[in-house]
Amino acid sequence: MPDSTREDSVAVPLLPSLRHATNSSSQVAIVGSNLCPVESLDYEIAENDFFKQDWRARSKTQIFQYVFMKWLLCFFIGIIVSLIGFTNNLAVENLAGVKFVVTSNMMLAGRYSMGFFVFTVTNLILTLFASVITAFVAPAAAGSGIPEVKAYLNGVDAPEIFSLRTLLVKIIGNISAVSGSLLIGKAGPMVHTGACVASILGQGGSKRYGLTWRWLRYFNNDRDRRDLVTCGSAAGIAASFRAPVGGVLFALEEMSSWWRSALLWRIFFSTAVVAIVLRALIDVCLSGKCGLFGKGGLIVFDVYSENASYHLGDVLPVLLLGFVGGILGSIYNFLLEKVLRAYNYIYEKGVAWKIILACAISIFTSCLLFGLPFLASCQPCPADALEECPTIGRSGNFKKYQCPPGHYNDLASLIFNTNDDAIKNLFSKNTDFEFHYLSVLVFFITCFFLSILSYGIVAPAGLFVPVIVTGASYGRFVGMLLGSKNLNDGLYAVLGAASFLGGSMRMTVSLCVILLELTNNLLLLPMMMVVLLISKTVADAFNANIYNLIMKIKGFPYLHSHVEPYMRQLTVGDVVTGPLQVFKGIEKIETIVHVLKTTNHNGFPVVDGPPLAPASVLCGLILRDHILTLLKKRVFLSSPVAFDSNTLAQFKADEFAKKGSGRGDRIEDVELSEEELNMYLDLHPFSNASPYTVLETMSLAKALVLFREVGLRHILVIPKLSNRPPLVGILTRHDFMPEHILALRPSLSRSRWKRLRIRLPFLS
Amino acid sequence: MPDSTREDSVAVPLLPSLRHATNSSSQVAIVGSNLCPVESLDYEIAENDFFKQDWRARSKTQIFQYVFMKWLLCFFIGIIVSLIGFTNNLAVENLAGVKFVVTSNMMLAGRYSMGFFVFTVTNLILTLFASVITAFVAPAAAGSGIPEVKAYLNGVDAPEIFSLRTLLVKIIGNISAVSGSLLIGKAGPMVHTGACVASILGQGGSKRYGLTWRWLRYFNNDRDRRDLVTCGSAAGIAASFRAPVGGVLFALEEMSSWWRSALLWRIFFSTAVVAIVLRALIDVCLSGKCGLFGKGGLIVFDVYSENASYHLGDVLPVLLLGFVGGILGSIYNFLLEKVLRAYNYIYEKGVAWKIILACAISIFTSCLLFGLPFLASCQPCPADALEECPTIGRSGNFKKYQCPPGHYNDLASLIFNTNDDAIKNLFSKNTDFEFHYLSVLVFFITCFFLSILSYGIVAPAGLFVPVIVTGASYGRFVGMLLGSKNLNDGLYAVLGAASFLGGSMRMTVSLCVILLELTNNLLLLPMMMVVLLISKTVADAFNANIYNLIMKIKGFPYLHSHVEPYMRQLTVGDVVTGPLQVFKGIEKIETIVHVLKTTNHNGFPVVDGPPLAPASVLCGLILRDHILTLLKKRVFLSSPVAFDSNTLAQFKADEFAKKGSGRGDRIEDVELSEEELNMYLDLHPFSNASPYTVLETMSLAKALVLFREVGLRHILVIPKLSNRPPLVGILTRHDFMPEHILALRPSLSRSRWKRLRIRLPFLS
Repeated sequence: MPDSTREDSVAVPLLPSLRHATNSSSQVAIVGSNLCPVESLDYEIAENDFFKQDWRARSKTQIFQYVFMKWLLCFFIGIIVSLIGFTNNLAVENLAGVKFVVTSNMMLAGRYSMGFFVFTVTNLILTLFASVITAFVAPAAAGSGIPEVKAYLNGVDAPEIFSLRTLLVKIIGNISAVSGSLLIGKAGPMVHTGACVASILGQGGSKRYGLTWRWLRYFNNDRDRRDLVTCGSAAGIAASFRAPVGGVLFALEEMSSWWRSALLWRIFFSTAVVAIVLRALIDVCLSGKCGLFGKGGLIVFDVYSENASYHLGDVLPVLLLGFVGGILGSIYNFLLEKVLRAYNYIYEKGVAWKIILACAISIFTSCLLFGLPFLASCQPCPADALEECPTIGRSGNFKKYQCPPGHYNDLASLIFNTNDDAIKNLFSKNTDFEFHYLSVLVFFITCFFLSILSYGIVAPAGLFVPVIVTGASYGRFVGMLLGSKNLNDGLYAVLGAASFLGGSMRMTVSLCVILLELTNNLLLLPMMMVVLLISKTVADAFNANIYNLIMKIKGFPYLHSHVEPYMRQLTVGDVVTGPLQVFKGIEKIETIVHVLKTTNHNGFPVVDGPPLAPASVLCGLILRDHILTLLKKRVFLSSPVAFDSNTLAQFKADEFAKKGSGRGDRIEDVELSEEELNMYLDLHPFSNASPYTVLETMSLAKALVLFREVGLRHILVIPKLSNRPPLVGILTRHDFMPEHILALRPSLSRSRWKRLRIRLPFLS
Repeated sequence: MPDSTREDSVAVPLLPSLRHATNSSSQVAIVGSNLCPVESLDYEIAENDFFKQDWRARSKTQIFQYVFMKWLLCFFIGIIVSLIGFTNNLAVENLAGVKFVVTSNMMLAGRYSMGFFVFTVTNLILTLFASVITAFVAPAAAGSGIPEVKAYLNGVDAPEIFSLRTLLVKIIGNISAVSGSLLIGKAGPMVHTGACVASILGQGGSKRYGLTWRWLRYFNNDRDRRDLVTCGSAAGIAASFRAPVGGVLFALEEMSSWWRSALLWRIFFSTAVVAIVLRALIDVCLSGKCGLFGKGGLIVFDVYSENASYHLGDVLPVLLLGFVGGILGSIYNFLLEKVLRAYNYIYEKGVAWKIILACAISIFTSCLLFGLPFLASCQPCPADALEECPTIGRSGNFKKYQCPPGHYNDLASLIFNTNDDAIKNLFSKNTDFEFHYLSVLVFFITCFFLSILSYGIVAPAGLFVPVIVTGASYGRFVGMLLGSKNLNDGLYAVLGAASFLGGSMRMTVSLCVILLELTNNLLLLPMMMVVLLISKTVADAFNANIYNLIMKIKGFPYLHSHVEPYMRQLTVGDVVTGPLQVFKGIEKIETIVHVLKTTNHNGFPVVDGPPLAPASVLCGLILRDHILTLLKKRVFLSSPVAFDSNTLAQFKADEFAKKGSGRGDRIEDVELSEEELNMYLDLHPFSNASPYTVLETMSLAKALVLFREVGLRHILVIPKLSNRPPLVGILTRHDFMPEHILALRPSLSRSRWKRLRIRLPFLS
């Protein structure tokens, strides 16, 4: 970029203005499995005159009600999410358990083909059911849901992601799909479930089904709903892994884009409730009332509790484990992205293809799970086995499979089992000689590819458990190869899971705590930290975090905290696109309706000029939602004068409350007579009188800091010279998207700033 | 507040303007034990033309150097802090250990008065040494240092807090004071030490002692230094409690005011290094090379590792424990605040009084520690004791004290011991009958009051360990009273420590994780969470967090994230005070010098008007530091024209780098001739062309969100009407301080908004 002369760079933007180009970046995204319009959320406090009066009128009782209700909601989120999480586990353990018991019994009786048939058909039916309800009832429930929730917490709203329908399909579909032995997880869907529960509670129940509560009216705004959704997603992780602190940290590190200390406390409260309720429910189950839900039923807790002893000499193999884990993780992300893109291409052909693909994957999975163990050699039962060998009747550790009496099939113990049990077997201590290293290798390869193929199907499917099981088998395999004396194979499996999680999900503190809470062994902490750091660093050199990749495929306009280097070279004036639509303080209805119909902006500056005001004056910013509410209320003025206080008294703040996601009004639904169109509306009392503003010479990077840190939807760009009109343009989320900026300035993508970023991915 | 008419409230601020009042809030604070001027830090990116050129000129190598060095610094912070933490522990264990062994041996020999004399004199000498070096060499090293570091991370800088002198005194003074059996902790000073190390490394060594490195020049700015100091404080907690994850969370929850995901990763890296190094050093010590540094030497790690079993029935007593703990914690904070205020009053009389007070407290402590055990009844040695009873020679669990053979003094085991060993004894399992409940009660009361009296002395003194030991004795006492069957007394001690910490320090996640890492028992998690939530909630109803109280006493202008309700009723126009000092783009040196000498502002708006510009134009904001650098450089213009690029080339970006804290230039040090005073300076290229701006009608609450979230030092207030001068005023940190606002508007302190807050402290 050539040096511009100094005077230029002070007075005008660095590059020629593009104020009449339009923002071409997409406003739709793939939500779940369907394409939907997305829009931004309003986290900014709208300081208009009308709300100010409303806030002043609010009594102490109402404020107390608000605070009390918010804590109560956090409590209920904890209760409901833990109940759902428990039910989910109970159902999966029982459904999958019965299936494995029946199949195993048939095999014990030598009826292998019958066993295969029952196994495959059961899995197919379960998968078919999950994919049919997902595809036809709630497409937004497909996938893990973490990308959608993460985008929501970043300020991107999509219709249906938090509807009651999505919630129900997510729960039932996930139980069904996981019971169908697909290699998918429960944690991601639990996060989405938690977020759904929080959002539905927060918006006062589901309006569509007539379930609403009046006390919850204070939460009909995006700020409170964001807090609750953050609580819900933390509770989701806490309920899936029984990891309350891990849940808090996951919400902090991965999910949330804004954070307040008060929120931390609230989230901690929700996850504490989850921890207590789960503890109580497990107490109930320990007395054997939960069917096949065994003592380790709820995931892999308490697996490894012996004191680990290791020394500095063990660091080198662990470093290697982390390094390779990072590379594997980034390959995993790369392949998963390719497969998802291929699936999206298939899905465009119609909904039938979605179902067919899900069924095909189910059959393929069943064949692999059933067939592969036949390749493994039979192991003689260990003399000192703590449990029956071979296992008879229930889903135990030593599967007989096709082996002769007194022998067991080690691969079947891993592969012909629920994922939770497989992880448990891999993490367990004193099993160093239980598995043959070839079995573990076969299991690793199967998990690696099968989970990549399975994630994209049209059913609620998580990524956490597949990544953990793949990583654990990888770690165990490495441990067997190295034959370390201090660290046993179970510990290597835990570290392998950490490295693969780090390589794929790229979290640090939260993964560390989740794994510690899973394995209940704090002494592993230093090792775990090293592994996570190494694998994340290595993997970051190649590609992004798996959830960010998925969000990119889905097209969510996610605002990263990272600033692209070229953004420092552009001023906000460079990227503002036009034309700018401005309303007068007292505007004709016809003009308003015309502008609303011909644009899809969501905020309009209100500017008064002479003769109404002594000079051009920026009165504020009015939201489309609020204008629509005003139009629907039909309180119009026959002449262009201001509203008097009697007229204002006709409005209630509740009417301006944010509608549930995807249920906002549309201008097309407002029908106005010819007479009404010629009347006027006083926008002053309803416009946000203090929108955030930046000077036109501010760099995009600096404006992005403001936009993201404060959580804005619109930034007004004001001119430097005071004799110009009071406004240059409006910046929204889409103006900060790299695609938009690079489309406006194609030269930037070839400049050294772009290249630099690729070569230094860890620059932050 | 009466309703103003609508037109008024749109066009003008709600209250009559006070633009010519001055900001009366204090710009000095008590740092350590002395009064010092404080100033704000510059976290904002100064986007001036000159820096832009410099940034563009930076090569890839330099950027790589920057990123690499930042990681390397985090690594070194980890290494150095863990070494200091280890040395600290080693020294304390040996110094205090020798003292206790010598005294105990004298008592075994029946020479009680000799023992008392040796004990008291040793303690007195150690305390005297600590207080003398603190008072005369580095007063900033007094106290825990956490309030100072917390204020720094909030953007308040004070001279000397991070100097090499402070660091050395902090380390040596803390070792000496803790070895002197004062009831003070090591964790707070370790946090300050970590922050010092980070800051000194970041500013490229100590300039005063000629230790600087050229590679570190990139870190001479407040943003990078903030990141490093956050790392350092996390490493400090990690090193004091061997709690790496707890350290990360402590830095996040309590210390830092701004947070980025990238920073989390960096902090995690530092604490991981601490964990590894400590592990290695303890491996060395396990072979017995560290003198009296025993196997549990490094605090109370691994104390309780048996699986705890408890059920819902245990919840009620635990709730009670949390409730009372919260009340006790808030009483503790209340009393500590009163005592600190009394001490400050005494300290005003002179430095000799500081030393006298420290000595008096030391003698008082020695008398109590030595005398109280004589009141306790002797317990017969248990038949199944795992260690020698009574202990002979070393600082063990069963102190003989004055008891007959075969008996031990249970109070002496607690009180005549190091704090770490006392905590270890209280937390330990299978000791339910070892202590008499009266002994525990006496110990609790002693710790409670002694720690309140000891904290304020002029020596490096932490609060964590005293609070833990007090809480543990409280918990153990409650456990003994209740006589629970499921939870043993050791567990009650842990929960009691949690409740007292929660009641005094008011953290949640970080305390929870620190205690888990201390006790190595994850199964306690749900109980711990409940206790912390209850005690924090109860205590928050009465007063603030202990560190916030201390910061308030010290007078740090700390910006809370909490918005006072009356701030929503005020616009920024209401609190802006004047007169506003504005520079022209090309300004006469004389004017500049005059303004700098007569004001103490740190930022000056640069505004051009006709005839230089077509209209009044806001060119930016220039910092006092940068003006001083320009004046010292003496590159002046003889006529009011702009700098040409040749002149600009004479400046180097390094010259504008932020000086170390408290070492900025002063206008009094710049001497200019009469001729020079009549010359001109072009301020354009050095002014930040894109300062953050807000409209004058924005509420103070909303401006505070911007100020705090983005981390600003100045906000420019711009007028709503475009025919007015381009600037209404400047807001700084002090304009947001409640004292300032309430001094301007005394009516607010009596309004219902103020009252409301007191009655609803948990409103957030």
